[in-house]
Amino acid sequence: MDLFVDPTRPRALSRSLYDQIRAAIGSGRLLPGERLPSSRRLADDLGVARQTIATVYGRLAAEGHVVGRGAAGTFVADEIDVETAGAEGRRSPRGRGAPPTVLEPRVGLPAPLVASETPRFDLRSGSPDLALFPHVPWRRAALAAAHRAPTGYGDHAGLPELRRALARRLARTRGVIADPEQIVVTTGAQAAIDLTIRLLTRPGDVVAVEEPGYPPVRRLIESLDRRVALVPVDADGIRPDLVPADARLVYTTPSHQSPTGATLTVARRRALLAHADRHRQAIVEDDYDSEHRHSDRPLEPLHLLDTTGRVVYVATFSKTLAPSIRLGCAVFPLVVAPHAVALRAATDVQPSDLVQLAIHHLVTSGDLDRHLRRTRKIYARRHEQVADWVARMSADGHLTAWATDHAGLHVAVRLHGITEAALAARLDVLGVRLGSYRDTWVQPPDHEGAVIGFGNADAERLDEALGLVERALTGVRAR
Amino acid sequence: MDLFVDPTRPRALSRSLYDQIRAAIGSGRLLPGERLPSSRRLADDLGVARQTIATVYGRLAAEGHVVGRGAAGTFVADEIDVETAGAEGRRSPRGRGAPPTVLEPRVGLPAPLVASETPRFDLRSGSPDLALFPHVPWRRAALAAAHRAPTGYGDHAGLPELRRALARRLARTRGVIADPEQIVVTTGAQAAIDLTIRLLTRPGDVVAVEEPGYPPVRRLIESLDRRVALVPVDADGIRPDLVPADARLVYTTPSHQSPTGATLTVARRRALLAHADRHRQAIVEDDYDSEHRHSDRPLEPLHLLDTTGRVVYVATFSKTLAPSIRLGCAVFPLVVAPHAVALRAATDVQPSDLVQLAIHHLVTSGDLDRHLRRTRKIYARRHEQVADWVARMSADGHLTAWATDHAGLHVAVRLHGITEAALAARLDVLGVRLGSYRDTWVQPPDHEGAVIGFGNADAERLDEALGLVERALTGVRAR
Repeated sequence: MDLFVDPTRPRALSRSLYDQIRAAIGSGRLLPGERLPSSRRLADDLGVARQTIATVYGRLAAEGHVVGRGAAGTFVADEIDVETAGAEGRRSPRGRGAPPTVLEPRVGLPAPLVASETPRFDLRSGSPDLALFPHVPWRRAALAAAHRAPTGYGDHAGLPELRRALARRLARTRGVIADPEQIVVTTGAQAAIDLTIRLLTRPGDVVAVEEPGYPPVRRLIESLDRRVALVPVDADGIRPDLVPADARLVYTTPSHQSPTGATLTVARRRALLAHADRHRQAIVEDDYDSEHRHSDRPLEPLHLLDTTGRVVYVATFSKTLAPSIRLGCAVFPLVVAPHAVALRAATDVQPSDLVQLAIHHLVTSGDLDRHLRRTRKIYARRHEQVADWVARMSADGHLTAWATDHAGLHVAVRLHGITEAALAARLDVLGVRLGSYRDTWVQPPDHEGAVIGFGNADAERLDEALGLVERALTGVRAR
Repeated sequence: MDLFVDPTRPRALSRSLYDQIRAAIGSGRLLPGERLPSSRRLADDLGVARQTIATVYGRLAAEGHVVGRGAAGTFVADEIDVETAGAEGRRSPRGRGAPPTVLEPRVGLPAPLVASETPRFDLRSGSPDLALFPHVPWRRAALAAAHRAPTGYGDHAGLPELRRALARRLARTRGVIADPEQIVVTTGAQAAIDLTIRLLTRPGDVVAVEEPGYPPVRRLIESLDRRVALVPVDADGIRPDLVPADARLVYTTPSHQSPTGATLTVARRRALLAHADRHRQAIVEDDYDSEHRHSDRPLEPLHLLDTTGRVVYVATFSKTLAPSIRLGCAVFPLVVAPHAVALRAATDVQPSDLVQLAIHHLVTSGDLDRHLRRTRKIYARRHEQVADWVARMSADGHLTAWATDHAGLHVAVRLHGITEAALAARLDVLGVRLGSYRDTWVQPPDHEGAVIGFGNADAERLDEALGLVERALTGVRAR
């Protein structure tokens, strides 16, 4: 039995101890007949006066929760305790033998991945290099944010000044032209997609996603009792001709398909929009990776080509700063936005002011741009490193690049002559972990693959890590 | 047409301007035949070289987006622009006449309340006094938080150290005994309730709420396509005997019923749990207001009496610090918690580290307790002021107290001899706004009422404000 003592509230001490012991009895942590620690020992353990414990035990005994048996000590009473007795036909509240819960939660969602041990070389995808995080500007931004007085329930779309700054930034960096009123600031991209699916579809509706695709969004859709339809992806991105006509919403990653890296071609973009027009579908454009461009080729967002107001554009700061920042946004068509804000007011209300203000400072001070100019060069070099390595491995027949990546922090390949599982087993010995390719598929793919993330590793180590992957691929043993 | 220029990226300037103008044409903001500003004027406006604008216009003209007509100026081309032409049977991409959206969002949710003008005396409920906000400790906490390195996708239940601190705090202050593993940190109480409903119910399921009750939770339930069942409330709180047997989940506010202020009696608490046991129902206990106690009467949470693991306890920092902090938590039964965490990983992932760390600092430094000791006294005085006033008005027959409030930042009353609307109209003239009583009901109530919030006003002003309400109630005109 763990008991807590608050040294700052000595007067509340006996009440708190009483409550805690009662709760322990009520919940079955202390079982009938169990012996309590002696008042002397407990007083010593907690550093409180023995009289305090004696008072608590006395009250518990007076109410029949415990029984004093002289020198033998104090024991949890065997009878149903008096306070909860007599409630209409209720079972013993002690909970002995009671199941820890009788609820039936939604199950089947995989437990979130928590790395049990950090590999020596972490080449999984999904995170930028936290060693590049702009600590000093971030502290400056957080302090500036903390100096602003907090507000009540503010603007549920997000802080107006942040939305204005995001509108300017999206126009400048992505060609996404939006009024600040179209923008809803969210606790990351996933929350933006959650809001959009809840806003534009109903339970039982079909939501189309890419196959292979981003597993968390698939899980999100299923958790909302919508039906997932899988749309094949090739080197040109999602196949618009294979989007089911009955889909109400299509989730897609046009700039850098997750996980294949394919860039959706302009012809496909138009076809996807035309298909959506014909079938009255909404499109969620997840531009998760687009700040990390490695070529001059403009990745014109679907949003720019959308003329009928069916694209919801989603962006995030998880890939430019750190996932734990948890800030993103959705750009809705103008007449849809107020409904999105109303729904948001009923769901998570708004993200914390503190984070919104910090990001606002980071964006408007120019610190974010400076950070990105710096990291873009670094990631571009790493991307080149990986691309060169992939070309070499490809020439040797070990693998094939999935697509020509123009952006992002990972590269996907098809493997030849080795399964992903066998490769992973060999790499495990060498201390390298890649991203999972198989997990991005619902249906078993007709080929083996691997995902090489380079967000996490610094450049020297990347060479070393790729050398180890090469060794695992070619079957050369460590000397 | 608004164009944005980023002074920190001069080399990207012409590309950015090109993108923005193309997007304006593509989206129909610039219509065919419309005249662009002269390159000289635009260069002046944006503070850039005229040659830059000339280059952009030249490229747009070369691609057929715009047409130069000599001295008359540069005009948006009348033809369908070349890049988007030819897409399979698509309409003109210019969007002239196109509806701003073809999507059908979930409507019917009321637009969130944004006060158009702040009244002189804001006696609405729901927010603590922001003038009491602990600015200096908050800055200290935010700075401490900003000094911690950010992480990748971390623990989806919330930071482990924060969950440990919350477990200790809940045990000490509320008698809620929980392992840190049972706690999921959320972006406020509303997000905790959202997560719980999604976890424990399915579309079409019946979710019981209090009538009158807290409107945002009702809206949340409806937005999730669950069916809302209304359970009457009297001066002893929710009526367990009237909870429908087919409800899968019951949402309740036992400490300080929202809005009536009733404290759920111990007998009712047991009956509610017994009823839930019989019908296999989950209970969400929203303890939104309990840090603000005005009496020594212990408000034993349902959670303490729960022996079968069916209560999900929800707490928030919105009422102790500020709503815009957006941090709360849910305490799940131990075996349910991992499923809650898995679902949360698929929805909003986790709240921002920055806020979690700041709250952790505030809790563990003792600053939060110091803040609460200070504000509790202030709110207790205000509560007494309002209670005294209510007693006096009640003796005069103008109103009746709904319940004996033992906690919270608002008091609900039944009105006699005047409608809420008439009272509000009179108060509007006097510059006072109360909380809405009618909005807390789905069915029209058989009586008139009002909600007097005292979180927002300082004590002197509260006297003055209550004087004005008295004047409006008694119909005495201003002298």
